[in-house]
Amino acid sequence: MTEFRFFHPIEVRYGDVDAQGHVNNVVYFTYMEQARAKYLQHLGLWNGRDFLDIGIILAEERCRFISAIRYGQPLRVGVRTGRLGKKSFEMIYSLQDADSGLELAVGTTIQVAYDYRAEASIPLLPAWRKVLASFEGLEDSAPVSGV
Amino acid sequence: MTEFRFFHPIEVRYGDVDAQGHVNNVVYFTYMEQARAKYLQHLGLWNGRDFLDIGIILAEERCRFISAIRYGQPLRVGVRTGRLGKKSFEMIYSLQDADSGLELAVGTTIQVAYDYRAEASIPLLPAWRKVLASFEGLEDSAPVSGV
Amino acid sequence: MTEFRFFHPIEVRYGDVDAQGHVNNVVYFTYMEQARAKYLQHLGLWNGRDFLDIGIILAEERCRFISAIRYGQPLRVGVRTGRLGKKSFEMIYSLQDADSGLELAVGTTIQVAYDYRAEASIPLLPAWRKVLASFEGLEDSAPVSGV
Amino acid sequence: MTEFRFFHPIEVRYGDVDAQGHVNNVVYFTYMEQARAKYLQHLGLWNGRDFLDIGIILAEERCRFISAIRYGQPLRVGVRTGRLGKKSFEMIYSLQDADSGLELAVGTTIQVAYDYRAEASIPLLPAWRKVLASFEGLEDSAPVSGV
Repeated sequence: MTEFRFFHPIEVRYGDVDAQGHVNNVVYFTYMEQARAKYLQHLGLWNGRDFLDIGIILAEERCRFISAIRYGQPLRVGVRTGRLGKKSFEMIYSLQDADSGLELAVGTTIQVAYDYRAEASIPLLPAWRKVLASFEGLEDSAPVSGV
Repeated sequence: MTEFRFFHPIEVRYGDVDAQGHVNNVVYFTYMEQARAKYLQHLGLWNGRDFLDIGIILAEERCRFISAIRYGQPLRVGVRTGRLGKKSFEMIYSLQDADSGLELAVGTTIQVAYDYRAEASIPLLPAWRKVLASFEGLEDSAPVSGV
Repeated sequence: MTEFRFFHPIEVRYGDVDAQGHVNNVVYFTYMEQARAKYLQHLGLWNGRDFLDIGIILAEERCRFISAIRYGQPLRVGVRTGRLGKKSFEMIYSLQDADSGLELAVGTTIQVAYDYRAEASIPLLPAWRKVLASFEGLEDSAPVSGV
Repeated sequence: MTEFRFFHPIEVRYGDVDAQGHVNNVVYFTYMEQARAKYLQHLGLWNGRDFLDIGIILAEERCRFISAIRYGQPLRVGVRTGRLGKKSFEMIYSLQDADSGLELAVGTTIQVAYDYRAEASIPLLPAWRKVLASFEGLEDSAPVSGV
């Protein structure tokens, strides 16, 4: 299992459960979203207040479901940055039972650096690259190509 | 402000915020629902697993919004039982800033005792009346009339 | 049953259903919210685009649940304006089975006229009073007191 | 663009919009879920009532976001079955502006045949294979390997 330097705890809500009695698949993405926001705040990349300053927009998102999540199950989401591109970067998630560490789902998102006021994608800011690479112990070698 | 013997902390999620930048009004009811479920579990009235055994169905729900709730605001929901009827009871909620204690919203729900398997309302079980009255320090005098 | 001059159809989503197999109570308020937005658009009071120009903020909301709503049930929400105050107005909702007309829930909201840019409540604009009163056939007599 | 024999219209709800003023990324998965349920009903594979008889569980889900979706935008979701495996099958989605046909997002889900009462995965029923293959004009050749 991938190692994570950041975890965010999640309380499964009664309203997260669907007609089959488990957490609805869609809500896994809400859990990843919440952990992603907290990760950015933890690294000082977002202040948690100005939504137009969040600096990224999702280009792609995926989740692989391993075990059902139940109401009341103690949950934590591991988040780490994967590949750093010129205009985008990858984040990787692990939804785990907080007691056992058992992995319940894994996810990936691709974020593109984005200026919400200009409504345009931008190059990934050097400051972001530095903070993400430093926190994760990644080599911040400028990629030759790709987004 | 009403006194509460039970509080449940809530983490405001990024996804709880709407286009105006504050927690969506609808989500206040999700917060109350979550606190209600935890209150029932705390009192041993629901095991947190069997959804058809939750024993109550909502007849009425209301919320008065006092101040906007922001992403990241530390939140707690006070819950207490109000009036105990023959077939129903009232619950009262206070959404508060967990740091300042400032009241952000107040709510009320009316629950009717309900058998989900039989799909029928039932009298409020003596065991429930006893537990609720005891926890809240209410007089469990059998009401003369009303639901 | 109250008469309505405006109805908005709602498609119950699979994800609206909760662990008891019926539409979650919280989602009723989403249905009312959606019908309210469409009502304002229908009357030309909101353009459906600029969220900071929606001009109202909720002060209070309530719902009385009559019958469970099922996935796949054809639904419509009747909306009308009730009392027009100096700074606020009341809206009344009826959630109905669109085929049978059977009333499944009734709701009420109190809206306060609000300037989202100034973050302050304002008097209810004469233009709003006129449009609402005219559409509903209400007497637009300026109330003497109250919000 | 992939061709679709099934489309389901979606009404974007006011509550689907997030703090950036566009439909929240998570809600795209709700739209796909709703279209998937309707597709199964359209093909007679689910009756729309018995949630434990829906016969599939999600193993994987992904979405690629192309353009932001706005409140009020007319939306339709194209759904088709891709690869049919022995125990699972793939579904492909296209979220489109219903007026222009412009593709706003594409998605994929992998479903595993599942018995919710036994809480166990099962082989994909021949009846399902036949219906899916027939509707989509796929060759229903039994796959040699893989899930």
